[in-house]
Amino acid sequence: GSFSRGMQTVTLIPGDGIGPEISAAVVKIFDAAKAPIRWEERNVTAIKGPGGKWMIPPDAKESMDRSKIGLKGPLKTPIAAGHPSMNLLLRKTFDLYANVRPCVTIEGYKTPYTDVNLVTIRENTEGEYSGIEHVIVDGVVQSIKLITENASRRIAEYAFEYARNNQRSSVTAVHKANIMRMSDGLFLRKCREVAENYKDIKFTEMYLDTVCLNMVQDPTQFDVLVMPNLYGDILSDLCAGLIGGLGVTPSGNIGANGVAIFESVHGTAPDIAGMDLANPTALLLSAVMMLRHMGLHEFAHRIQTACFNTIRDKKVRLFTYSQRAQIVWKLKLHSVTHLSLK
Amino acid sequence: GSFSRGMQTVTLIPGDGIGPEISAAVVKIFDAAKAPIRWEERNVTAIKGPGGKWMIPPDAKESMDRSKIGLKGPLKTPIAAGHPSMNLLLRKTFDLYANVRPCVTIEGYKTPYTDVNLVTIRENTEGEYSGIEHVIVDGVVQSIKLITENASRRIAEYAFEYARNNQRSSVTAVHKANIMRMSDGLFLRKCREVAENYKDIKFTEMYLDTVCLNMVQDPTQFDVLVMPNLYGDILSDLCAGLIGGLGVTPSGNIGANGVAIFESVHGTAPDIAGMDLANPTALLLSAVMMLRHMGLHEFAHRIQTACFNTIRDKKVRLFTYSQRAQIVWKLKLHSVTHLSLK
Ligand SMILES: CC(C)[C@H](C(=O)O)[C@@H](O)C(=O)O
Ligand SMILES: CC(C)[C@H](C(=O)O)[C@@H](O)C(=O)O
Repeated sequence: GSFSRGMQTVTLIPGDGIGPEISAAVVKIFDAAKAPIRWEERNVTAIKGPGGKWMIPPDAKESMDRSKIGLKGPLKTPIAAGHPSMNLLLRKTFDLYANVRPCVTIEGYKTPYTDVNLVTIRENTEGEYSGIEHVIVDGVVQSIKLITENASRRIAEYAFEYARNNQRSSVTAVHKANIMRMSDGLFLRKCREVAENYKDIKFTEMYLDTVCLNMVQDPTQFDVLVMPNLYGDILSDLCAGLIGGLGVTPSGNIGANGVAIFESVHGTAPDIAGMDLANPTALLLSAVMMLRHMGLHEFAHRIQTACFNTIRDKKVRLFTYSQRAQIVWKLKLHSVTHLSLK
Repeated sequence: GSFSRGMQTVTLIPGDGIGPEISAAVVKIFDAAKAPIRWEERNVTAIKGPGGKWMIPPDAKESMDRSKIGLKGPLKTPIAAGHPSMNLLLRKTFDLYANVRPCVTIEGYKTPYTDVNLVTIRENTEGEYSGIEHVIVDGVVQSIKLITENASRRIAEYAFEYARNNQRSSVTAVHKANIMRMSDGLFLRKCREVAENYKDIKFTEMYLDTVCLNMVQDPTQFDVLVMPNLYGDILSDLCAGLIGGLGVTPSGNIGANGVAIFESVHGTAPDIAGMDLANPTALLLSAVMMLRHMGLHEFAHRIQTACFNTIRDKKVRLFTYSQRAQIVWKLKLHSVTHLSLK
């Protein structure tokens, strides 16, 4: 059984605002489930390195390098000019090239949709996020979208492997190769090539606009979707909306050699921080993804079941909070899920 | 009254597939309503000009230059290599810089949403649609997104004017200036500047991903949305999905000096072409937008009311057709709407 493998270390990045309290809830639930995880808590707020470059603090970097696995709460959007987005800095520092978001309808949490069961897989390192921009002449600006063969092949391979390992039957490549013929064309070509090696998985391709239209009409037609960076940013949030928002949607950022950071992608909700009202579901389900990634399937299953039962049995009450796709809880999920685990 | 102004000419581009039959339906309904329109039918399929450049046939161009107003059915996607997208060529030829799509819930046509009532306004000439792409080295491609001060100001001004003239109370600028700081930053700055001149209209700004998430959770929070080209491509289709798809969503492409082409943006549906099953709603509602644009508000109102009553009273039966967001009709809208007009 999993116990015999002994404890595994995970770098815990509680984050800001409601981050610490939802992290505490997850730790409590993992304790109750006797999950063999040793948490190593770290702060990742960027510091200025020797050359004046923003970087992750060395002790956080060192912990991640050793553990390979991180669990991360929300981080404040930087306000200082020149201060980088922490999310982008983490993706870059650890070359987390795939963002994976399973969107599955949660029983007991009503939305306009039922039976959503799909996964968005987003290329996380290039595309519109290259950061290369210029002023050509006064009043004319260009931003460069960079698509490479390697990154495209790598993400396509990840998507097909994911589909195969998770009993999913189809992969849809999302693109605008009718407009960006060369860049999205390259991405699409790599997807087609990789698809050749996965004859057991159905491959389709669809324009991003068509995906969005079909998605809101009938999300059940989609399974695994793979796409360049910006399209993934858009579609993953859209799909989170279908099942109840960022407060209930898990996310994982995957790199090479097992390195990965799992995270809730909602905000820090400073106005309710410390009030024990915050909803830990997104972070908890991200932690469940993490357990699967670590091969701890039994624990993943138990905790996920407890979480879903708790919501289904209305032992927590969900309501949307001020249209910010944030969710406030009437009861505390960590205590109730704790009970469900006994 | 409107009659005294005499007949106005409109260039009618029936298009391919189901295009001719839905165009015929619209002409019939306009006749029944005694709308003072003289149709000048033209084919716009691109031809190769003197320098080998693809262009709109001269007689179509000449008609549009004279009438200034076009109504257009769906056009076949070009298959010949190097043949341009007809939609892009039309936008370019007539500098149709604003794509306007009102998305309003249609009574009697059930979707997961009610009370949708918003308008997407898309910059139609630049951004990711610049067509500038390069191979940097083998396996590395860049596409250039071009944002200019002039086009950004022009579309922002259009959006605020639209809001004011259509009794709408808010404009939301949709962007990713957190990622594309210079290009989307420029777009956003122009929106903010223009907003200063429209103190009667509430101005907000929102990230595209956040808009998508909020849109599927509660579309009623949005009113007028303005955005760069690609974001508009995505959002306008998403919003069409909320109210029933491209088969019921009107669209207008607006240029300077009153030039405009109104169009249904669904496909040519070759498999049902000629069977008198095609749904003319999108083209009819586009024609209604056209009447408003021409100042023929009374006719617009009468025809729109007849159309909505026909749907509400279930004199047509709508059902989605093979998940292509295409809609097939059991009864013929043109005959029934004709009755409603009497
Ligand atoms: C915070 C921001 C940089 C980020 C993005 O645009 O990728 C966010 O929207 C996300 O999806 O993680
Ligand atoms: C046909 C295609 C070029 C077009 C686009 O991408 O703009 C279409 O999706 C649209 O929205 O009109």
